[in-house]
Amino acid sequence: MSIKLTILGCHSATPRINAFPTAQYLEINNFHCLIDCGEGTQRQIRKYKVGFSKFSHIFISHLHGDHFFGLIGLISTLGILGRERELHIFGPKGIEEVTRLQLKITQSHAKFPIVFYELASNESEVILDNDKVTVKTIPLDHRIYTNGYLFIEKEKQRNLNIGKIEKYSEITKADYLNLKAGRDFTLNDGTIIKNEVLTKSPKKPLRYAFCSDTAYKPSISKIIQQVDLLYHESTFLEDKSSLAKKTKHSTSKEAATIALKSDAKQLVLGHYSGRYKEIAIFKEEAQKVFKNTALAEPGKIFTVV
Amino acid sequence: MSIKLTILGCHSATPRINAFPTAQYLEINNFHCLIDCGEGTQRQIRKYKVGFSKFSHIFISHLHGDHFFGLIGLISTLGILGRERELHIFGPKGIEEVTRLQLKITQSHAKFPIVFYELASNESEVILDNDKVTVKTIPLDHRIYTNGYLFIEKEKQRNLNIGKIEKYSEITKADYLNLKAGRDFTLNDGTIIKNEVLTKSPKKPLRYAFCSDTAYKPSISKIIQQVDLLYHESTFLEDKSSLAKKTKHSTSKEAATIALKSDAKQLVLGHYSGRYKEIAIFKEEAQKVFKNTALAEPGKIFTVV
Repeated sequence: MSIKLTILGCHSATPRINAFPTAQYLEINNFHCLIDCGEGTQRQIRKYKVGFSKFSHIFISHLHGDHFFGLIGLISTLGILGRERELHIFGPKGIEEVTRLQLKITQSHAKFPIVFYELASNESEVILDNDKVTVKTIPLDHRIYTNGYLFIEKEKQRNLNIGKIEKYSEITKADYLNLKAGRDFTLNDGTIIKNEVLTKSPKKPLRYAFCSDTAYKPSISKIIQQVDLLYHESTFLEDKSSLAKKTKHSTSKEAATIALKSDAKQLVLGHYSGRYKEIAIFKEEAQKVFKNTALAEPGKIFTVV
Repeated sequence: MSIKLTILGCHSATPRINAFPTAQYLEINNFHCLIDCGEGTQRQIRKYKVGFSKFSHIFISHLHGDHFFGLIGLISTLGILGRERELHIFGPKGIEEVTRLQLKITQSHAKFPIVFYELASNESEVILDNDKVTVKTIPLDHRIYTNGYLFIEKEKQRNLNIGKIEKYSEITKADYLNLKAGRDFTLNDGTIIKNEVLTKSPKKPLRYAFCSDTAYKPSISKIIQQVDLLYHESTFLEDKSSLAKKTKHSTSKEAATIALKSDAKQLVLGHYSGRYKEIAIFKEEAQKVFKNTALAEPGKIFTVV
């Protein structure tokens, strides 16, 4: 059980030579996915060697170009690479129509099925639940319909406490699955041995929250309480808080306040405006509120184990 | 009068870290335009400093992703940069629908008008004729409807031969415009002085031909006879001529043969397949047929004066 997050791009849309729009590659509990897919994401995937074959899902936060204009190029490349496996794409309403139209006019030869899940709710909802993860939306507050995503590792089975189990000769290996599933054991004499006696709690499932783009929205902290890793956009510093409000983005201080309110373990900042020449100041501002803050940078990897 | 061609991208669609799909920035007789616009073109525009403000026209050869997936990102960036001037986009039927749909779903704030010219003819046609250039299509033979483009400098006015003019006191400065336009001069006694006596021929208008993507199509040499600069795709070498035929691309030798048949002054190769580790061999193969051959490379500039 672990989280490995590779930053592929982490800048805002303002044009700069060394700016890469938002894209992240997430591995959580062996579930591989992409989060957002700005223009050039396929080149970043190659550059940072995260690979084209392992991910099965793409989660798009919103339909501003710097978060999804790289999607169609990536899909085309997957076609060229001969992908056959299904690709699942989550994103706001409209994403299917535009993607399918692009595939049609380019006469794409992509042979793999693409399954779209269009989102429209303003309430947090479970949008994916498989044997590895549960994914919930985090409704955000931006100029266009936007969701963040909360990734939660699937709860593991309990660990056997062999030392205790061996004290009961009646318990055999055939009973282990029931014990791992949390069931009590009843001896032949009718005595019930509580599951907690025979097993140990598994490691707590890890959680990663991706929040971009959004105005300061403190209510999301309820959804992401005690998250292990939190990416929160910080397009501006406090010196431009009125511009942040106007454009529905957050300042570094606001991102840190969300981390604090959420009792997050670590905060990662990103989506830096081109108005700032260096990014170190984003971290400085945030750390006044929330100490364990790091900066997203292309190629940087964040792991939680 | 001059041609300045900046290569922004010149590789085929096969995914590679250092491959940049087709895009060129052309300045011809002070007319600025983009030819094709693969993903990442806006970054290449910044990198090679050709600028976002001077071009007024974009010519898209065909709707394969490696030739136009960068268009919507570029348009969005022009919007962010506050462009107000009209943008004219030429390309195959379908380009307007997909671009407008993308602008709609991204709720783009681009305030400048975009005028689309959708092409569908299989015959060469004049698609633009202004005071600087004439642009003609070069119908190509690819897996999808494709045009190359021929850019022709506008014919200049004739140059005054002042030495000769001064021999005729009846000719005053008021007559110069007529002389430059090629008209003869009639003296008071009725004698006609031929224009060729009073003026010199202007420099021959320069011509640039862009031909990508296409199978070997020798008939295009009629359209591009004696072109000053010819870009012709060479996706493969002769060792993969059957693959070239199958995918409707050209080999380096075929590109050189087109240059030879067209009596071109210089050939530029590009659209190299990722199957070849180095590109020098493309030039070697072509030069056996057509000596004045160069390789397109990102950032390389070709000038004709």
